[in-house]
Amino acid sequence: MIEDFIFQNTTKVYFGKNQLQHLGEEVSNFGKKVLLVYGGGSIKRNGLYDRIMEQLKASGIEVFELSGVEPNPRHTTVNKGAEICRKEGIDAIIAVGGGSTIDCSKGISGLVMSDGKNDIWELIESGTPLMKGLPILVVLTMAATGSEMDAGAVISNMEINQKHAIGGPGVRPRVAFEDPTNTFTVPAYQTACGSFDIMSHIFDVEYFSKADTMDMLKRIQEEVLNTVIKYAPVAVKEPDNYEARANLMWASSWALNDFLYDGCSQDTVCHEMEHELSAHYDITHGHGLAIIIPRWLEYILDDSTAADIARFGRRCFGVDDQLSDMDAAKAAIEALSDFCFNKLGLKSNLSDLGIDASKFDIMAESACRGGVLNSIKPLNKQDIVEIYKMCL
Amino acid sequence: MIEDFIFQNTTKVYFGKNQLQHLGEEVSNFGKKVLLVYGGGSIKRNGLYDRIMEQLKASGIEVFELSGVEPNPRHTTVNKGAEICRKEGIDAIIAVGGGSTIDCSKGISGLVMSDGKNDIWELIESGTPLMKGLPILVVLTMAATGSEMDAGAVISNMEINQKHAIGGPGVRPRVAFEDPTNTFTVPAYQTACGSFDIMSHIFDVEYFSKADTMDMLKRIQEEVLNTVIKYAPVAVKEPDNYEARANLMWASSWALNDFLYDGCSQDTVCHEMEHELSAHYDITHGHGLAIIIPRWLEYILDDSTAADIARFGRRCFGVDDQLSDMDAAKAAIEALSDFCFNKLGLKSNLSDLGIDASKFDIMAESACRGGVLNSIKPLNKQDIVEIYKMCL
Repeated sequence: MIEDFIFQNTTKVYFGKNQLQHLGEEVSNFGKKVLLVYGGGSIKRNGLYDRIMEQLKASGIEVFELSGVEPNPRHTTVNKGAEICRKEGIDAIIAVGGGSTIDCSKGISGLVMSDGKNDIWELIESGTPLMKGLPILVVLTMAATGSEMDAGAVISNMEINQKHAIGGPGVRPRVAFEDPTNTFTVPAYQTACGSFDIMSHIFDVEYFSKADTMDMLKRIQEEVLNTVIKYAPVAVKEPDNYEARANLMWASSWALNDFLYDGCSQDTVCHEMEHELSAHYDITHGHGLAIIIPRWLEYILDDSTAADIARFGRRCFGVDDQLSDMDAAKAAIEALSDFCFNKLGLKSNLSDLGIDASKFDIMAESACRGGVLNSIKPLNKQDIVEIYKMCL
Repeated sequence: MIEDFIFQNTTKVYFGKNQLQHLGEEVSNFGKKVLLVYGGGSIKRNGLYDRIMEQLKASGIEVFELSGVEPNPRHTTVNKGAEICRKEGIDAIIAVGGGSTIDCSKGISGLVMSDGKNDIWELIESGTPLMKGLPILVVLTMAATGSEMDAGAVISNMEINQKHAIGGPGVRPRVAFEDPTNTFTVPAYQTACGSFDIMSHIFDVEYFSKADTMDMLKRIQEEVLNTVIKYAPVAVKEPDNYEARANLMWASSWALNDFLYDGCSQDTVCHEMEHELSAHYDITHGHGLAIIIPRWLEYILDDSTAADIARFGRRCFGVDDQLSDMDAAKAAIEALSDFCFNKLGLKSNLSDLGIDASKFDIMAESACRGGVLNSIKPLNKQDIVEIYKMCL
């Protein structure tokens, strides 16, 4: 039976090439003091920082800065940002970057409004949904996480090698500027990782779901996958192909967005497994997922899952209709591996990333928190260790 | 080149079987006095009226009523509703019904907040966007227009046989309750008409667009069409098939919704032609569109449009990939006609609805307002007359 759900997504998106001119007016709706949050400085090299500052200056906005947000954003950086917001009386946060910068901003936004807490990790451990938050505006520079229209964030605590999710309606970005030309400078490797991250949301959160998902949504999920399958290899080869970058950017926003996941069981087992890898080895999230997901599908393939995996292969990789579900599912997994490791050029094994089996046990234990990861096929600790081994 | 656009859709949707319990709390966010707007009273026969009143009573809401909203809602009914709202100090409107009831409610909502105007037709003629509106909540009883998540309305003035659109962000429903079981009692004919109305939004507003639409959106548009092609005949035959009703209901909300039409040229030429038919003959909108659209496609088919129409046929009706674009386009139109007139069982000609050629000239003149209807292929008055003749 199709599950009941509540859908609401309030983010206002300015999509396209000539939209940044609206940044000042949108910020002014919230106040005059902003915290500009960004990463390693590529936005200074490519001119985006200057264009943003120009817009803010013209609108009389006072700008404070938090730079150096890490690819897997740290709880300490979140705490630092919240401190600035409180000290300076910040009215809104502008996140300029991809998922890490946006997630860090969400952490700051929620922490500032959390009635006196100073450490985001405390909030994460309490499991409290973030109902209130300082307004967040996003200038997106990477197509990957969907964090620009979503209410969730993932924060890392490297002191204890943990990476956990937090979120709530208060930290969903109010406004997002999605200009595909801002992704022209994303290197091929990050483009490939980001593209697989988009796909991973569909695989892991939605499509291979134990819920009885509406057929319309399954069809749309397949077409978002097909969009990435078509355009990711183009963007890897031709970084300034606008059509490819635009399709990937809009796909990223919708792949992890209430429309596509409401009514799905949102199990995220592969994300749990990957978060362990990132938390222990600080690897790129999308790459970790590209290594895990084909192996996970191989591991869970049996008579109960074959039809779903076969459908994916037929609709997304043109797998022969004449094959049995089991053979079609095998062909689908092979096609997906070929896509990740040949078309996108990602390295196919954990050992290629310098990861060995030494922590599999600890990571598996942590991924399933000593119990079972529920999904289309429930996984216990031993299952997870086996999947890690297949990735070696 | 893909067009820039701004996306925002703030409607909160409660989807599913057990959601009406949230009506009272949602209404209470806006106040204590509501105007309940509905049509001919089927909601009294099927028990929905009682269930709604029970919820409102439990939340201490005072209810005023406007019943008898017409299938093509009249400007006079809108004016009457606005008068009640002003006199009684109404805080919010609850529209219980399909597109007509919702559109009527949007007219009321905008008129009440229009600084002293008493006639919605004045507002329509002024072309002013409705930036402010009394909050609207919807309890949807029919899958068709998408008005439940959209910011537009169509109102008829039968005194002068005109049917025109009006809208703006102020009248977009704040909350919509979409319970597929509330459509179980929709008769087969209305189910068929509503289903084609869903498809018509994709054909006329989005898919056959002169804009260079993002491929991802075209793919998703195709899958919403496929959803209707799959489930409409099921719902016509099995009115209480939950899976079919759920897919059709969610398809209706997304077919005419910023996500699917932002960046498209939103030409609506067939809607302009159909609005003339409804304004002069008061026929069911979706039926008028089902008669017009296959003929329109036939009329505009040439070397410049064949590829687009062929793609539709291949992706939605399994038209043979080996056929030339021109032959595939012809097959697509044939398949669409077969779907409308055989699978959905709709009568195929205007003459079947008692319409003759006597007003074609007046209607064509009015449809293009003496100029040209811009679209994938611009249509002047003579073109429109020719298309009407093909429908006879």
